[in-house]
Amino acid sequence: MTLTGEILIGGKALRGQNGEILGVDAASGNKLPVSFGGATSQDLEQAAALAWDAFPIYRETSLEDRAAFLETIAQNILDIGDTLVERAMAETGLPKGRIEGERGRTVGQLRLFATEVRSGKFQELRFDAADPERKPAAKPDLRLRNIAIGPVAVFGASNFPLAFSVAGGDTASALAAGCPVIVKAHSAHPGTSELVGRAVQKAVADCGLPVGTFALLFDSGREIGQGLVADHRIRAVGFTGSRVGGTALMKIASERKQPIPVYAEMSSINPVILFPNALKNRGAAIGTAFAASLTLGAGQFCTNPGLILAVEGEGLDAFISAASEALSKAPAQTMLTGGICKAYTSGVEKLGSHGKVKKLAEGVAGEATQGRAAFFETTGADFIAHHELQDEVFGAAGLLVRCKDTAELQAVLDALEGQLTVALHVDEADNAQAKTLLPTLELLAGRILVNGFGTGVEVSPAMVHGGPYPSTSDGRSTSVGTLAIYRFLRPVCYQDLPAALLPAALA
Amino acid sequence: MTLTGEILIGGKALRGQNGEILGVDAASGNKLPVSFGGATSQDLEQAAALAWDAFPIYRETSLEDRAAFLETIAQNILDIGDTLVERAMAETGLPKGRIEGERGRTVGQLRLFATEVRSGKFQELRFDAADPERKPAAKPDLRLRNIAIGPVAVFGASNFPLAFSVAGGDTASALAAGCPVIVKAHSAHPGTSELVGRAVQKAVADCGLPVGTFALLFDSGREIGQGLVADHRIRAVGFTGSRVGGTALMKIASERKQPIPVYAEMSSINPVILFPNALKNRGAAIGTAFAASLTLGAGQFCTNPGLILAVEGEGLDAFISAASEALSKAPAQTMLTGGICKAYTSGVEKLGSHGKVKKLAEGVAGEATQGRAAFFETTGADFIAHHELQDEVFGAAGLLVRCKDTAELQAVLDALEGQLTVALHVDEADNAQAKTLLPTLELLAGRILVNGFGTGVEVSPAMVHGGPYPSTSDGRSTSVGTLAIYRFLRPVCYQDLPAALLPAALA
Repeated sequence: MTLTGEILIGGKALRGQNGEILGVDAASGNKLPVSFGGATSQDLEQAAALAWDAFPIYRETSLEDRAAFLETIAQNILDIGDTLVERAMAETGLPKGRIEGERGRTVGQLRLFATEVRSGKFQELRFDAADPERKPAAKPDLRLRNIAIGPVAVFGASNFPLAFSVAGGDTASALAAGCPVIVKAHSAHPGTSELVGRAVQKAVADCGLPVGTFALLFDSGREIGQGLVADHRIRAVGFTGSRVGGTALMKIASERKQPIPVYAEMSSINPVILFPNALKNRGAAIGTAFAASLTLGAGQFCTNPGLILAVEGEGLDAFISAASEALSKAPAQTMLTGGICKAYTSGVEKLGSHGKVKKLAEGVAGEATQGRAAFFETTGADFIAHHELQDEVFGAAGLLVRCKDTAELQAVLDALEGQLTVALHVDEADNAQAKTLLPTLELLAGRILVNGFGTGVEVSPAMVHGGPYPSTSDGRSTSVGTLAIYRFLRPVCYQDLPAALLPAALA
Repeated sequence: MTLTGEILIGGKALRGQNGEILGVDAASGNKLPVSFGGATSQDLEQAAALAWDAFPIYRETSLEDRAAFLETIAQNILDIGDTLVERAMAETGLPKGRIEGERGRTVGQLRLFATEVRSGKFQELRFDAADPERKPAAKPDLRLRNIAIGPVAVFGASNFPLAFSVAGGDTASALAAGCPVIVKAHSAHPGTSELVGRAVQKAVADCGLPVGTFALLFDSGREIGQGLVADHRIRAVGFTGSRVGGTALMKIASERKQPIPVYAEMSSINPVILFPNALKNRGAAIGTAFAASLTLGAGQFCTNPGLILAVEGEGLDAFISAASEALSKAPAQTMLTGGICKAYTSGVEKLGSHGKVKKLAEGVAGEATQGRAAFFETTGADFIAHHELQDEVFGAAGLLVRCKDTAELQAVLDALEGQLTVALHVDEADNAQAKTLLPTLELLAGRILVNGFGTGVEVSPAMVHGGPYPSTSDGRSTSVGTLAIYRFLRPVCYQDLPAALLPAALA
């Protein structure tokens, strides 16, 4: 497959005339082949009109046809072969193993949603039988099903060029629900986006679906992305990115004539709580494991463990020493974009120069495009007093909060904003204390995990990758796992419809 | 039970010191016994603090205990006896049969939610088994359950003094989900509110639940209601009322530091579509049935059939004649409040003096506190051109839109805002045409019904009383029926938790 730099609308590829986006080699900063034309507002209008036309047909495709479509997308992505892996590696600076793994996850996710669609469970069919004899009033025949909410705008994420981008979790779950999708490609990986976009577009054609089922737009500024969220034919939004970006989209969506849901996954520092017995018995081992999780993928995970909470006590020094040692040796890693690298460096500098923060360790220095790990500490009281210490520093930066006692630990937890994950390191003797914190943790995060780190996000039925604001815009949902399909559905009740009028699933 | 005019907080009753609210006899306009003290911001603070304290305990009550609590509320409401019926009749002007029926519905609703709680289904438990041998990475043990979202603010509705008020659908579903509830009483029926509030408060005590599980506040202005929505301990809002009121609460909720969902049921004109064969074969009968539905409860239903759509043809004149005749004879009915009556009269005058609207019939004139039915017509083209003709006139006012052909009917449907219900009157020979409209109707409303009117809203598993904006703030939910419980839940995932830490339902 050869890149052309074109946007994909209506089963065709065309050159966007609104500025250009360049693919950049993340490691060298050099321009990569092909320039990508930015979409105009006319392109957006056309994509939205086609999505709206496709919607009534696509949402009523049979479960089997829709599942087959998702599987075709998966196969078409695999069929791109190494071209995709190489382009994604170049555009993101992520290593081959990671990109291949992420491709596997993306394809697996599409296939999992195919299985979910075939099961039909998401329709949540309900039947209340009529009772014409009931007094004082006859009981009507009521049937309920979930229907697709409408065309969905998906914003590609910089940090998962495959799994949270053009054919990632948002797209897979929206398509599974029966919603056409218009993707706003992330400008950090336009080539990867075009390759995957063409795989989806080909699947639309392979499966004989309406051409408006999918579109891919490049945006040389913010106009197209914001215009998408404001368009009356768009009925929901999937976004993964910064808090500034997410809240801007939430505002646009809430000010529309018809407000729509925005599912924005924004920022999280994913607290890790070290309990006394775990610390005492294996503080050093936890420290080493923490360093490995913190530096995974240059720390560019939404679930990166950026905050460590511990009460002063035996083993804490061992944890710090082991973590510091591992982090000091951690090689610098190429970050996703120059902008992200710059923001990371500046965030680390800000933490390092904070009057209430002490630097514990930093990783090996690297190139200008690389981020080096950083590890800091502060006290519980200072953490509570300085809200800015909760700001996410996107990358491999960790902050240890030393609490003087469990009361201060509880106070720190109470002061925290909503999170995607919270991890507990416990030994059996810690269970009683951990149990008392659970009610707090359930309100704090969407996922609670024990003796691990949140960086691995399983794509499965019981996963929740979501959490209270501001980790996401809407803590009632998840962007990973099969439950994600429910974001793009709404219930409709059918009362006393004759068989001839009932939807097939309810007849 | 004797009224005291007190607000109910923390298991106690106390006199609100922030102005007063008077109960008014809807028919005579005369003051009813007892003045009700408005809550202060200190009262609100106390109620919110107690609700927050109660939350961790109440949300983890056993399913059986929570179900028994709902049943106790139901019994305590019945135990008030005629005092409740008489006060509600006086405050609302609604007849005895209606109030008794509504009491039955309210009690039945609480019992239905008790059954729903006992089933445990709403927890949506999910289990993904671990696989330590999986390559390249071990698969963790994942378990998911829904937990209660937090304390909920419920706004009593004027038009259902029992079923959508202090212990109505919002309260029942929030309590069922495990959320403490703070009710802002509707000022139009303060005595009814206190009586029911005391029944709930007694149930809290009867069942040994934390005193913060329930509170009832009177509000002499808007300060307390708005303050509730802004309070950081309130995590969701249930509201039934005007669009102005609902959108004001949505704005407050979206501008909080932590935005929260507002489930506002606002306005709907509930289109009724008359198909050609149904009109031809039984136009007059449908007209008579329409008049009965339009005037039910003085037209003060969210699901009142305010809009009739028909294509010119045989039977339309018969429909109009029969409806006009029935409506001309319809007695004026006492409306809920003087304000509602005035707004209705002014809405009817506005419609009647609209250049593009013709009056077809009006009901018998009545007292100053009574509304008389009104029936108007316009054309499809004029309806589309004049958006103000879509404004809800809350009361027994109907507007017939004569469409010149099916294309114009489709254009009218496309121009409509979101609705709670849409009703179709069809004979068998109309099915083919009706079928082509269904995709439009599914996007327009939350409930589609055939050969009836939406005024009866069954409380059952398959009911959807909700619809696209602006009929509600969030078309993904319902405020009637067991599905309503999901509004007050959010999913939490537990990864690799030892049995000692797992919630009982997941262990």
